[in-house]
Amino acid sequence: MKQAIAKLGYVALQSSNVEASLHFFQDVIGLELTEQIGDTYYLRAWGDFQHHTLSIAPGEAGRVTHIGFRTKRREDVALFADQLGGKGYEIEHIAAWTTPGIGEAIRFTAPSGHRLELYYDIEKPVVEESRRSVLKNQTYKSYNKGASPRRLDHVNIHTDADSSVTYKFFTEELGFRINECVETEEGDILAGWMSVTPLVHDVALVSHEKLETTARFHHISYWQDNSGDLLRAADICKEHGLQIIGPGKHSISQAIYLYVIDPGSGCRVELFTGGYLIFEPDWETVVWRPEERAFGNTYWGDSITGNPLIVPTIDATGIKETKAVPALEV
Amino acid sequence: MKQAIAKLGYVALQSSNVEASLHFFQDVIGLELTEQIGDTYYLRAWGDFQHHTLSIAPGEAGRVTHIGFRTKRREDVALFADQLGGKGYEIEHIAAWTTPGIGEAIRFTAPSGHRLELYYDIEKPVVEESRRSVLKNQTYKSYNKGASPRRLDHVNIHTDADSSVTYKFFTEELGFRINECVETEEGDILAGWMSVTPLVHDVALVSHEKLETTARFHHISYWQDNSGDLLRAADICKEHGLQIIGPGKHSISQAIYLYVIDPGSGCRVELFTGGYLIFEPDWETVVWRPEERAFGNTYWGDSITGNPLIVPTIDATGIKETKAVPALEV
Amino acid sequence: MKQAIAKLGYVALQSSNVEASLHFFQDVIGLELTEQIGDTYYLRAWGDFQHHTLSIAPGEAGRVTHIGFRTKRREDVALFADQLGGKGYEIEHIAAWTTPGIGEAIRFTAPSGHRLELYYDIEKPVVEESRRSVLKNQTYKSYNKGASPRRLDHVNIHTDADSSVTYKFFTEELGFRINECVETEEGDILAGWMSVTPLVHDVALVSHEKLETTARFHHISYWQDNSGDLLRAADICKEHGLQIIGPGKHSISQAIYLYVIDPGSGCRVELFTGGYLIFEPDWETVVWRPEERAFGNTYWGDSITGNPLIVPTIDATGIKETKAVPALEV
Amino acid sequence: MKQAIAKLGYVALQSSNVEASLHFFQDVIGLELTEQIGDTYYLRAWGDFQHHTLSIAPGEAGRVTHIGFRTKRREDVALFADQLGGKGYEIEHIAAWTTPGIGEAIRFTAPSGHRLELYYDIEKPVVEESRRSVLKNQTYKSYNKGASPRRLDHVNIHTDADSSVTYKFFTEELGFRINECVETEEGDILAGWMSVTPLVHDVALVSHEKLETTARFHHISYWQDNSGDLLRAADICKEHGLQIIGPGKHSISQAIYLYVIDPGSGCRVELFTGGYLIFEPDWETVVWRPEERAFGNTYWGDSITGNPLIVPTIDATGIKETKAVPALEV
Repeated sequence: MKQAIAKLGYVALQSSNVEASLHFFQDVIGLELTEQIGDTYYLRAWGDFQHHTLSIAPGEAGRVTHIGFRTKRREDVALFADQLGGKGYEIEHIAAWTTPGIGEAIRFTAPSGHRLELYYDIEKPVVEESRRSVLKNQTYKSYNKGASPRRLDHVNIHTDADSSVTYKFFTEELGFRINECVETEEGDILAGWMSVTPLVHDVALVSHEKLETTARFHHISYWQDNSGDLLRAADICKEHGLQIIGPGKHSISQAIYLYVIDPGSGCRVELFTGGYLIFEPDWETVVWRPEERAFGNTYWGDSITGNPLIVPTIDATGIKETKAVPALEV
Repeated sequence: MKQAIAKLGYVALQSSNVEASLHFFQDVIGLELTEQIGDTYYLRAWGDFQHHTLSIAPGEAGRVTHIGFRTKRREDVALFADQLGGKGYEIEHIAAWTTPGIGEAIRFTAPSGHRLELYYDIEKPVVEESRRSVLKNQTYKSYNKGASPRRLDHVNIHTDADSSVTYKFFTEELGFRINECVETEEGDILAGWMSVTPLVHDVALVSHEKLETTARFHHISYWQDNSGDLLRAADICKEHGLQIIGPGKHSISQAIYLYVIDPGSGCRVELFTGGYLIFEPDWETVVWRPEERAFGNTYWGDSITGNPLIVPTIDATGIKETKAVPALEV
Repeated sequence: MKQAIAKLGYVALQSSNVEASLHFFQDVIGLELTEQIGDTYYLRAWGDFQHHTLSIAPGEAGRVTHIGFRTKRREDVALFADQLGGKGYEIEHIAAWTTPGIGEAIRFTAPSGHRLELYYDIEKPVVEESRRSVLKNQTYKSYNKGASPRRLDHVNIHTDADSSVTYKFFTEELGFRINECVETEEGDILAGWMSVTPLVHDVALVSHEKLETTARFHHISYWQDNSGDLLRAADICKEHGLQIIGPGKHSISQAIYLYVIDPGSGCRVELFTGGYLIFEPDWETVVWRPEERAFGNTYWGDSITGNPLIVPTIDATGIKETKAVPALEV
Repeated sequence: MKQAIAKLGYVALQSSNVEASLHFFQDVIGLELTEQIGDTYYLRAWGDFQHHTLSIAPGEAGRVTHIGFRTKRREDVALFADQLGGKGYEIEHIAAWTTPGIGEAIRFTAPSGHRLELYYDIEKPVVEESRRSVLKNQTYKSYNKGASPRRLDHVNIHTDADSSVTYKFFTEELGFRINECVETEEGDILAGWMSVTPLVHDVALVSHEKLETTARFHHISYWQDNSGDLLRAADICKEHGLQIIGPGKHSISQAIYLYVIDPGSGCRVELFTGGYLIFEPDWETVVWRPEERAFGNTYWGDSITGNPLIVPTIDATGIKETKAVPALEV
């Protein structure tokens, strides 16, 4: 297989309360607004290089419409279209720049039910001087507002479809490597951390017996440079009246985490630091058994197991009411 | 009242497994050994100025025999003896240097049942060159081993005796100020954070309906300069096979915490950073209601409420077995 | 001497460009505005408890008009007036609330030429809900903007008058203790770090052979909780086009520092963390010899010796020109 | 070109004082000893996955004998041998396991004069339980001693040969990408930061008009997870009597740095954190002009330009004498 994916690119989010989502992602998380086109907002972290890593469009309910990945070469988009189309996957062709900043693209549905996009061409908009970093290798001024993460890191998705088919799809069709997993003695993978980069995961996929919908988007994760940045983010979230899970450290990936929910869309966001990079070409999947899963999830700190998050609802006059959301099962 | 206490001085600990306690306090926590006299070990942090802030003596069971405080002036020791003796407290006189490094002292029992000591004179032993800091205002080289906290911070003690009598004793007889407290509408103080210094607490006292013994020593707390030091300490504790509670942040005191138990004595240790200092002479006690207590205990992070710690037992060949210890009720 | 000073209170600054100073202190340093009265602005850090710790008034040139200290008791203000007046110091009486938030006060000139103020009564204005911390023991929401230090720490002042007279004034008349100093073999103190609190210094006084004016205000210092906060502040300053000195670590005080200049007034600001507290009542001054001064100033990092800062001039359209300011001689 | 390099592998160092070098790399830097074979020591960081990332062998003078890189596939070693041999580079074949932990390898000399090695096979020795991490995805217990970096990051090498030939060699023959560079208007590259991974550099090459030897090894760099770890490392180095440069932040690479010299070999070590990763497949080299070089080198902090390091000489009884070494010209 010649064609290859280079990186996770962006998440297309719908929010039933775009105003609240914008407040959350700009003032609490600290993303920068690349541009607004119509009623859709395009955001990225100060160290992200492509046009946007998150888009927020209005919708009846909070949901992720698709997840975009950039290929290694321009021709890979068509090669993937041929390959996947040849195996019976329905390919949707998206004309260049239909999504602002994103060139010609294809979309298809993974066996898990998640809608994925592949593209190569990107726009690199010039940032106006007042917001541009004084560093020529950095996009925006850093630490301007809120938690202020550096860059998009990964996504975590859940499914109750036959996950072995999806793992096979990601590894054999898209070229991902499973770097760590929770696996039964019988070889069933319950959760897998997969990447095309040296990151431990660009995508984590978790399987469930039963979900409300087959394909669930669990969280989008942004990277911060230091663990101290996550503790500061915890303070910032609390001062904004938001519930958090964490800080804690995963055994799997060795990364330090903090979770918080966008009150506008219900989308979970992870702030993330630490962890390791995989440069070894013959990396052997690190296998955790189901009985090691709790330890794998939480090495220390606030546990992500059985810990329900309450989502505050915010309108223009402040936090109004709360609703319960399911615990993080990962 | 002319006489006054200057600071918390040291904790005298007994351990049923001194070897394990020494390993824990030296290699995991990273205290320095001032000296060994007979079968007792005298330790302090790299930034502590007096002879020791923790002594470890062999005993049938882990327990704290007394807590020492330094007075502001030499004559204050006798003045406190007169004052407390005059009110019927039995005063034990300890000859100078009976406790290595500690001059003439008095001991008495607080209404809570805790044994307290007051002294003024201290020895300031010269540190051998290989361990001495290159800084003339610092005792030992910093960050030599383990978590490596800077200095003793406070103690936390529990009682099931009438705590109002003990709060009165600490404030009226010993000159402490209650900086924060958990108090019922009826004025019963359930927990009080008290100090003679600008620290939010040199001593915290927590009242219980029923304890196994009237006077319980809950934890000794050492200060670290940065929150990152606590996260590193979490890694160190886990790598030594020790369970921890935390990291988390108290609302009360605003400090960031990590708890771990000495496997030799069962003594709980808190690593501690952040928080605020009180320089206002007219500080008004910050009052938390019982229903705010959980929030007061844990602003964010791993909760100290209802979180049991398991104490590993260590012998020369490593961790052998574990026993459960009660949850942190504070 | 019964009367005593409790703490450093505030610095009254004049700026020739109040707009630039406000931008600097609010957006770069991250202080909060308590209130504006007339053309004067009153600011404080998110963890400061009194009405303000910095005031900015318009003036022909940047300068500090006086430095305020809070006494331990209300009656101490009058007692200090009597004591100092009796020794020939001219006492100016300031009616209560002439300075917003500050009660009845006295002002006088130290032998070094610096104008000092003593007061006891303070207003503690209630913060509006949108800016108030969710923590009842904290004034404002933390980490809202800029470097976001916790609280005022100390001031550093310079003189070319006979400094021994001023050290005597601070210690004998005002009750300060010299915790560390640079002293010649002959006993001349070249620089002294003095406090009435357990901080290593509330005031540092540095003597010079010749200054442009006898009494110079060198810097106001705000405290940050973690060294990581200072590194983030360095990024923030640079992104705002401001020159910095540091980060570095002083041997004297053991504190980590970052210096930056308010482009509006030319006032130097230090962000500060680490360091030690002095609880020992018999602390012996740590004496550094002149030949140890460079090491005393900079333990590691960007040296404060002979390091000139360039002050950018900012107007509404951005940074316009720069002028050189003298090196930090401390 | 099918064959490819996966990663920087290890540095083979000779030391004229192996005992001092071992003390430095184990106790100050905090590397772990994989094994000793004969009089050569094999070390790595707690998060390194291959047998060793640094070897220390006795020699008449401190020097680096070669730098090893791991290929992506086993067959790539032979393919590179053919390719380079075909272009006239003399290929030395090293039998498998001649270097402990390293399989069949080839060595050749880059146009800059540096001796490079390529290999694929590696041994992954099992770590004894007392030093093994409790995490199955981590090699050794972390934060056991000294600065305790996570992993090898990059090397920095200097040459006074025609550097354009060497840049061409690295990019065209070895597959590196120049991510950032200092380049004259005429297109002469004065310094280039090159990688085969998403790191900004696996190798930096700096050109000089004249060096004492054509090929100079400037520094080996190890990664730490947090900026706070570097400040702690600064304290540790100073307490060991070692001079440091930094902490500071490069504009080029955006990374935070600390430099210290191994007193045994004179080898410079960089501790390194922060910085960015490059996942974009069409990354355009960030070009700095010579007049931007000082800013490119030091964004803030202790400057690496014109800052001489003094190398202490250590023998068994402590630091004996010092000799000056050239400034860091990078």
